[in-house]
Amino acid sequence: MGESSLPSTTKAACVSNPGPDFSVVLRDDIPVPKPGHNEVLIKLSVTGICYSDLHYMLEDLPMPKMSEFNVLSPGHEGIGSIVAVGDVPDHLGLKVGDRVGLKPVYSSCNSCLLCTTDREMYCPASLQTGLHKPGTYQQYVIGSADHVIKIPQGVPDEVAAPVMCSGATIYRGITEAGVKPGDWVAFAGAGGGVGHMGVMYAKAMGMRVIAIDGGSDKEEMCKRIGAEHFVDFTKVKDVNAEVVKLADGQGVHGVIVTASNMAGYRGAVGMLRTSGVLMCIGLPPTNQLEGLVDPITLIGRNIKVTGTAVGTRNDVRMALQFAAQGLVKPVIETYTFDKFADAVMKLKSGKVAGRGVVKFD
Amino acid sequence: MGESSLPSTTKAACVSNPGPDFSVVLRDDIPVPKPGHNEVLIKLSVTGICYSDLHYMLEDLPMPKMSEFNVLSPGHEGIGSIVAVGDVPDHLGLKVGDRVGLKPVYSSCNSCLLCTTDREMYCPASLQTGLHKPGTYQQYVIGSADHVIKIPQGVPDEVAAPVMCSGATIYRGITEAGVKPGDWVAFAGAGGGVGHMGVMYAKAMGMRVIAIDGGSDKEEMCKRIGAEHFVDFTKVKDVNAEVVKLADGQGVHGVIVTASNMAGYRGAVGMLRTSGVLMCIGLPPTNQLEGLVDPITLIGRNIKVTGTAVGTRNDVRMALQFAAQGLVKPVIETYTFDKFADAVMKLKSGKVAGRGVVKFD
Amino acid sequence: MGESSLPSTTKAACVSNPGPDFSVVLRDDIPVPKPGHNEVLIKLSVTGICYSDLHYMLEDLPMPKMSEFNVLSPGHEGIGSIVAVGDVPDHLGLKVGDRVGLKPVYSSCNSCLLCTTDREMYCPASLQTGLHKPGTYQQYVIGSADHVIKIPQGVPDEVAAPVMCSGATIYRGITEAGVKPGDWVAFAGAGGGVGHMGVMYAKAMGMRVIAIDGGSDKEEMCKRIGAEHFVDFTKVKDVNAEVVKLADGQGVHGVIVTASNMAGYRGAVGMLRTSGVLMCIGLPPTNQLEGLVDPITLIGRNIKVTGTAVGTRNDVRMALQFAAQGLVKPVIETYTFDKFADAVMKLKSGKVAGRGVVKFD
Amino acid sequence: MGESSLPSTTKAACVSNPGPDFSVVLRDDIPVPKPGHNEVLIKLSVTGICYSDLHYMLEDLPMPKMSEFNVLSPGHEGIGSIVAVGDVPDHLGLKVGDRVGLKPVYSSCNSCLLCTTDREMYCPASLQTGLHKPGTYQQYVIGSADHVIKIPQGVPDEVAAPVMCSGATIYRGITEAGVKPGDWVAFAGAGGGVGHMGVMYAKAMGMRVIAIDGGSDKEEMCKRIGAEHFVDFTKVKDVNAEVVKLADGQGVHGVIVTASNMAGYRGAVGMLRTSGVLMCIGLPPTNQLEGLVDPITLIGRNIKVTGTAVGTRNDVRMALQFAAQGLVKPVIETYTFDKFADAVMKLKSGKVAGRGVVKFD
Repeated sequence: MGESSLPSTTKAACVSNPGPDFSVVLRDDIPVPKPGHNEVLIKLSVTGICYSDLHYMLEDLPMPKMSEFNVLSPGHEGIGSIVAVGDVPDHLGLKVGDRVGLKPVYSSCNSCLLCTTDREMYCPASLQTGLHKPGTYQQYVIGSADHVIKIPQGVPDEVAAPVMCSGATIYRGITEAGVKPGDWVAFAGAGGGVGHMGVMYAKAMGMRVIAIDGGSDKEEMCKRIGAEHFVDFTKVKDVNAEVVKLADGQGVHGVIVTASNMAGYRGAVGMLRTSGVLMCIGLPPTNQLEGLVDPITLIGRNIKVTGTAVGTRNDVRMALQFAAQGLVKPVIETYTFDKFADAVMKLKSGKVAGRGVVKFD
Repeated sequence: MGESSLPSTTKAACVSNPGPDFSVVLRDDIPVPKPGHNEVLIKLSVTGICYSDLHYMLEDLPMPKMSEFNVLSPGHEGIGSIVAVGDVPDHLGLKVGDRVGLKPVYSSCNSCLLCTTDREMYCPASLQTGLHKPGTYQQYVIGSADHVIKIPQGVPDEVAAPVMCSGATIYRGITEAGVKPGDWVAFAGAGGGVGHMGVMYAKAMGMRVIAIDGGSDKEEMCKRIGAEHFVDFTKVKDVNAEVVKLADGQGVHGVIVTASNMAGYRGAVGMLRTSGVLMCIGLPPTNQLEGLVDPITLIGRNIKVTGTAVGTRNDVRMALQFAAQGLVKPVIETYTFDKFADAVMKLKSGKVAGRGVVKFD
Repeated sequence: MGESSLPSTTKAACVSNPGPDFSVVLRDDIPVPKPGHNEVLIKLSVTGICYSDLHYMLEDLPMPKMSEFNVLSPGHEGIGSIVAVGDVPDHLGLKVGDRVGLKPVYSSCNSCLLCTTDREMYCPASLQTGLHKPGTYQQYVIGSADHVIKIPQGVPDEVAAPVMCSGATIYRGITEAGVKPGDWVAFAGAGGGVGHMGVMYAKAMGMRVIAIDGGSDKEEMCKRIGAEHFVDFTKVKDVNAEVVKLADGQGVHGVIVTASNMAGYRGAVGMLRTSGVLMCIGLPPTNQLEGLVDPITLIGRNIKVTGTAVGTRNDVRMALQFAAQGLVKPVIETYTFDKFADAVMKLKSGKVAGRGVVKFD
Repeated sequence: MGESSLPSTTKAACVSNPGPDFSVVLRDDIPVPKPGHNEVLIKLSVTGICYSDLHYMLEDLPMPKMSEFNVLSPGHEGIGSIVAVGDVPDHLGLKVGDRVGLKPVYSSCNSCLLCTTDREMYCPASLQTGLHKPGTYQQYVIGSADHVIKIPQGVPDEVAAPVMCSGATIYRGITEAGVKPGDWVAFAGAGGGVGHMGVMYAKAMGMRVIAIDGGSDKEEMCKRIGAEHFVDFTKVKDVNAEVVKLADGQGVHGVIVTASNMAGYRGAVGMLRTSGVLMCIGLPPTNQLEGLVDPITLIGRNIKVTGTAVGTRNDVRMALQFAAQGLVKPVIETYTFDKFADAVMKLKSGKVAGRGVVKFD
């Protein structure tokens, strides 16, 4: 496909009236951008819908706003094909027709300590897709050539989309927690969009999974995708005691919390064995925040507490590899482009099972 | 020295009326024990006095009491010579005349995962010197052959004593925090008994030290023993901002808190750069305890929080090696045996400069 | 079962005329030993037969001889039940009736740096089962209480036996090589007694396995137990090129050599990608030995070369856990006690498929 | 300094007749290049002379030739000031007047696994200064904006120059060897240009250094700059035995070989304690190459052998920081520009003491 055949405008789902009463408006008059230095133009086939997108449209986090950067479309889980290549170094090996994905980190400085030690999401110069730069709710969209990710064969677009953010994030949470094959790992919020991918990744990595969530539907799903045990917090009185009992009577090596409220965090340390790790992934509302563990517990049991944001390029690539091996298949709900607003509002209402994915065509 | 020449009784400083009104009573009628299987009898020349000893005599921690184990003397920083060897395996290489030290961990199972991965203080079967077993306030005392530590040449007894507990503990805190040569490390409570040894160890290990404490005496000492900067919390309004500024404008790689109150912990996370580590060493009173860091801070800055108890055999050996190299010389206050009670009470009143050490003869 | 019911003699397979013309003689007049300090007496149900046993009987390695220690029976893969407990510390939790296993490391000092950092097989004071101490070819045999391993439920005796040595050894080889879930690992000698267990462990730990060996029987087995690819050195001309091609065109992250000849080692480095690890497990004859990799290769591709002996207590426990999970099932050939000599001679002739295991009763 | 004031030509030391009979010719007619995208133009004040430069001019390594890339000047240890900034992203924070350094890695893809995990010198797309791109023997020279390194205050140009390559390389060798503060590390070739910087870095990092080289001059220097012991291979018969004896009777934790011949490598493994690391840095001639260690030694003593090429950006920055702290001061021999050929030929003859550095003005 040559550049000459590119349309002059692209369709996009845009935020209108950002804030508590925002709405999603479908437009088809957004000019198709031209890729410049280190840029490629991508025509997306699908985009995932992430809870972070909602935060950006709701403007309920203490961080910069999309409007400050003249960005109308959020979204950072986009899969499509390169349709035009700007002034891009040959060694990146990108050409028209390549299937690629966009992820939360749009670009970074590539030179600092953080970029060069696999922590680019913490680079002070890093930019975010769908916040600082137009996001994947827009079909024709620019990607930074050194950050777009080639999608391996065998991973369908709609499977790859949620891997770009939630898959890679939970993959990093698992690896950075330091849990190893054969170790016990618990997921608090195992039935959610991020948590259920954690169950699959941990299982694929040889860990023993205890899924914690509520309800028999979630129990069925968690066990089907690899959990060795399910602890239903709506039925079990002392969740920690139950987890400890199931994990050799000693507790788990790591607990990964994807809950987006403090309640999901409070007890978690009690599930851990000596030297266990509490890994924070879910973002509670600012007004709920509180400290997690006291010094005596940390000292007395050698507990470690940490957290991680989204995955890096390497995390995304490895997360995709597990998908290509057929070991990770996110549960998705697909929508057509004309139902984009519905998909967003359904996530807002908390009713999406797994991950919502919109197909552009 | 043959066993035949051993006295039948030994002097010891014993606790009387344990609890808030305890007193230290000197006795000379304690029977000298006989070393049995895997045991050696040691004649101590010195013992350090640690704040933990006070906790045991005050009975103010939620843990077992000395009296439950019929133990009269606390103490876990003793240096002396072996005067009798029980039924001890040859491969441990212990003989009468060897100069050895006793440390907080009296014994452990030596077989579990924790014992065999350098975390024996967390072994469920581990016993503590001066709590489960008679401590180093007693001159003739039994040591477990697989846990006593040979003292290297060139380290005087009174130098070795504080290394057994406070030196080894802070050495482990530094290594477990993962700070590396060239990294910035801050000590909150740098002028204290444990903190000042931290300054010396960190310096000897090639780190750059920011000492935090109050008063010009402590400033002078901290700078003399290796701190590159001193931040006086009695003078500097925003301690965190000052530490961040001094550490390349980014913050320190690790902050190690030896304070025994929550106030010393609260701000500490604010000094850290991305991926920095907050290491807990000091034990705040139970009624002050609170959680340390919220999930958003942990996620947003990839902070790690952890804690560690006393050192292992390997930590003690390495901590002694640095002393043998002349790189670590704890500041001590020495007492004769007849002043034992005074030494303890002075520590209780918070007036000891550095570490109190009692000489038995 | 009380001690009173113990027999006075035990049957055992003993070496006669050690050296190139040794034979295995069955006896039933070996006195049953009494467990002393830190010892338990075990009645074995099965023992594995390891190639190291042959080395000890052939006396063809440059190391101490069994006869120097008055040891008649080799063997270090024994599973059975405790029938008498000597003077053993309560905290080890051993009692008559416990099902336990013996492994290559009989005992170690438990106090040195190596013992306390999970490297007890390198402890200078460590002793070997079946070399320094009577081995598992003898039915009633003593174990060191701090080194015997409890066998988890769900692992049959004949499955547990080969895990004690070959399973734990290859498990350690994999973990010490630093290959991670999702990484490619090649086994040179994948169809052998140790190699085939490596395929199973690596698969269970989420790695991608390339099995290298010769013949369609081995291909069928390797693929059945988890290899993603099989490279048949009897058919493929350039094995290295093939392995590199299969492993993303970059080569494997680790290659583990279980071959007991230099030929199996020579090319292995050529299969590795940048920063790859060559892990040595198999012992070539002394007269074949040669250096493995030149400095330019190590520098130019950041290659790492290392080796490891048998597993530690922790390795054995984890290796057993994977067996208890049903993820590792060694291929075994079972013999009755009266066929003991045949079993040994069959291994000597290189004809055993998988691991030979003898049942005592 | 504005671009308008830039000269149109620059002086440079160029290779003539590359090969065994090459010569160095001074020219002043080389056009000053214009910085383009992601490039800065630097006016150098000094350049170091590295043995690799000789290899490139001699064309005696099995690798690409300078002439294939139309490069006349080698050199990769240049320090100077930015005199023009091309189209460079703001976030790199580079401006005219900044003092910066050039190092061996000119550029890399910044996106692959190797670039993003601190191993950019192994990036398949990486280019080398003075090989693929004009080197620092040319006064006005282009640098890649994401790879030039800011020189910290307090490090003179002539000190910084050798840090860019030899300092950073040996720093990486030490860190990648995994030796820790308090560990013993031996340098084989401690008196050489790279080796003597290793002694200083290891000392600054809290390690205990055994320097191995020949002659009393080198002994004096090595001890002055931080070696705890010096082993003179011209005097000591069994160097390995001596090193083992000095290092607690157990051997060193790591030996780092900077020798450029196999003789320096052959015995090195014999100096190591259990689990010790042999780190290869020096490049022996291709025709000397041989394998380093046999499998039995690797297995029997858990030895690790590896190698590393030049340092990364992070290594250079940390290596400069130690220089800025005053802990590392390379021994240098300075030359004026008109003596450039002499300086090169003196290195070729093996007569340079420490590192040769040429001042351009």
